[in-house]
Amino acid sequence: MVKPRTTSFSTKPRTSRAQARDGYVVGVDIGGSNLRVALADCRGTILGKWAASTKRTSSAQMVVRQIRTGVNNLLRQAGAPQSSLLAIAAGAPGVTDRAAGIVFATSYLKGWKDVPLGHLLSSALQVPAFIENDVNLAAIGERWMGAAQDVRDFVFLAIGTGIAAGIFVNGQLVHGPDWVAGEVGYMIVPGTPEGPAKRGTPGSLESMIGGEGIREQWLNSSAGKKPNHAGDLTATGIFYQALTGEKHAKHILEQSARILAHAVHNISTVLNSSLFVLGGGVGMNGPLLAATRRILEPYTQPSHPRLIPSALGQDAQMLGAIRLALDFAETSKPAGSRTQER
Amino acid sequence: MVKPRTTSFSTKPRTSRAQARDGYVVGVDIGGSNLRVALADCRGTILGKWAASTKRTSSAQMVVRQIRTGVNNLLRQAGAPQSSLLAIAAGAPGVTDRAAGIVFATSYLKGWKDVPLGHLLSSALQVPAFIENDVNLAAIGERWMGAAQDVRDFVFLAIGTGIAAGIFVNGQLVHGPDWVAGEVGYMIVPGTPEGPAKRGTPGSLESMIGGEGIREQWLNSSAGKKPNHAGDLTATGIFYQALTGEKHAKHILEQSARILAHAVHNISTVLNSSLFVLGGGVGMNGPLLAATRRILEPYTQPSHPRLIPSALGQDAQMLGAIRLALDFAETSKPAGSRTQER
Repeated sequence: MVKPRTTSFSTKPRTSRAQARDGYVVGVDIGGSNLRVALADCRGTILGKWAASTKRTSSAQMVVRQIRTGVNNLLRQAGAPQSSLLAIAAGAPGVTDRAAGIVFATSYLKGWKDVPLGHLLSSALQVPAFIENDVNLAAIGERWMGAAQDVRDFVFLAIGTGIAAGIFVNGQLVHGPDWVAGEVGYMIVPGTPEGPAKRGTPGSLESMIGGEGIREQWLNSSAGKKPNHAGDLTATGIFYQALTGEKHAKHILEQSARILAHAVHNISTVLNSSLFVLGGGVGMNGPLLAATRRILEPYTQPSHPRLIPSALGQDAQMLGAIRLALDFAETSKPAGSRTQER
Repeated sequence: MVKPRTTSFSTKPRTSRAQARDGYVVGVDIGGSNLRVALADCRGTILGKWAASTKRTSSAQMVVRQIRTGVNNLLRQAGAPQSSLLAIAAGAPGVTDRAAGIVFATSYLKGWKDVPLGHLLSSALQVPAFIENDVNLAAIGERWMGAAQDVRDFVFLAIGTGIAAGIFVNGQLVHGPDWVAGEVGYMIVPGTPEGPAKRGTPGSLESMIGGEGIREQWLNSSAGKKPNHAGDLTATGIFYQALTGEKHAKHILEQSARILAHAVHNISTVLNSSLFVLGGGVGMNGPLLAATRRILEPYTQPSHPRLIPSALGQDAQMLGAIRLALDFAETSKPAGSRTQER
């Protein structure tokens, strides 16, 4: 059963871009395990959050129904009529055509293929709906009120189970002609597999320093097989083991940091991005960040990127969704019953 | 001594973007060995070319004086008064701040450091002057009338002695906050040096598949040391040796193609560029292009970039400079004596 929960939220919004208009927007974070919905006013103040599990009910229709339930709950709690909703934006963990509002494919939600999520959401809620890749939304969130505030050129690099980048160039997100820009989980550097990745399997970089890749290396080491070493350690746990001096964990940490440093360096030779914001469970790991910075230190040519952890953590994507919905609400003319507001 | 020569030029220009305005523009290609100047009318038709050596006289002041001589020669030849010159654009082989018109550094011209080339040229010729990195200009040229006509997202990858990319995203050149976007000669892939490059030394990728890097591998092989194998073979010559079955040359070709394929793949994971236009003496080599395409074939995730050779060859940069000057001439208001022309 879906267990909705509504919580208040203390994020302090920046109000400079807000307009003097009434009404609300909704931001949605669709993940492989959880669905999170937030209601915000036109100044970006978050009024309430709602969450549900997507583990058993991941068909697109079910997820849209869950989102509608969440939105209605949040509007009711805020004492706001349905007609005060101006826009909704949602992020999905997969290749997403933002212009058409279609999620082409995602390995995290079963059966999602060419889902017209934008259309489904705008039909269900009767407001304009915007769809974006989850990592791109997290980059938007970090640029709005996180670690990359007002930075025009930066890379948000998410490293969890998968690896992908949200890339800002000249203040604009880079999507690419096939909407797969930033899929750097497929990058090849010394120490990763050199052959091509098959469809549906992890990319070279991902297979080495994604969460599962790190776990696999640990499980294949003699340390990971020992009964006294918890075989169910996560990547984060393994990296903290390295700090205790455990030699296999140290080797995995050092190797992961070298691979990550080379990937960051390579991206920076292409884009000259001076700032990399690391997100995701693996990306935000302290020992990994420290080791990667140390390795990257002497790489000053052609430029020397700065690595910092995400400031928004798990909220980056949802805040990015709210920002995307606000962008529409701030620039669009009010429709229907809201015409008199201007 | 500088030996100017003036030649006619048969490139057939596309006229769609041209404006019905009189006047001329100049495009300049400043290289480590040669300086090439071309005069074009407002439809982009090239009326004449002028060239000189930069080998002995490479100070910025000397080069500007040479350019002025070339421009005056070309105007005189075309029967055009000085006042009909609308704009000049020049490309330099180094890190260039296009906005300020400054060439920060170039290893190809002795003593060039923070040269205010835009200011020097506009002072010398009394017209607006625009400065851009040479590889970026070549990308502009290929997009205007070469291999990437009207393509919004592509990479022009120049591989000669050095390696660099001119990158178009959404129809805009990517420069990066420090003007070093596209310096992919520093990229690290399997088979290249993994350590950081020192200032003034070739980058990892460059040291392996730049012209000098390839020559060095050949010279270090037993074949390159043999008196019967010309030790002064160029990279191009070595790659054609590979086609004769010479095993060391074959190894160098195969290895270079693999390294180039991985670099192209890596850039495409970042940008999702579907088209790579290869320029430069090494980049346009037929055997290398064929071998690289074969290796890249199975790399279909996240996308599959297409590799084609430059259509403009050595003229790409100069044509890009003319396009850049025309962009100004087409959008600006005529000044001074030319006001009545509109």
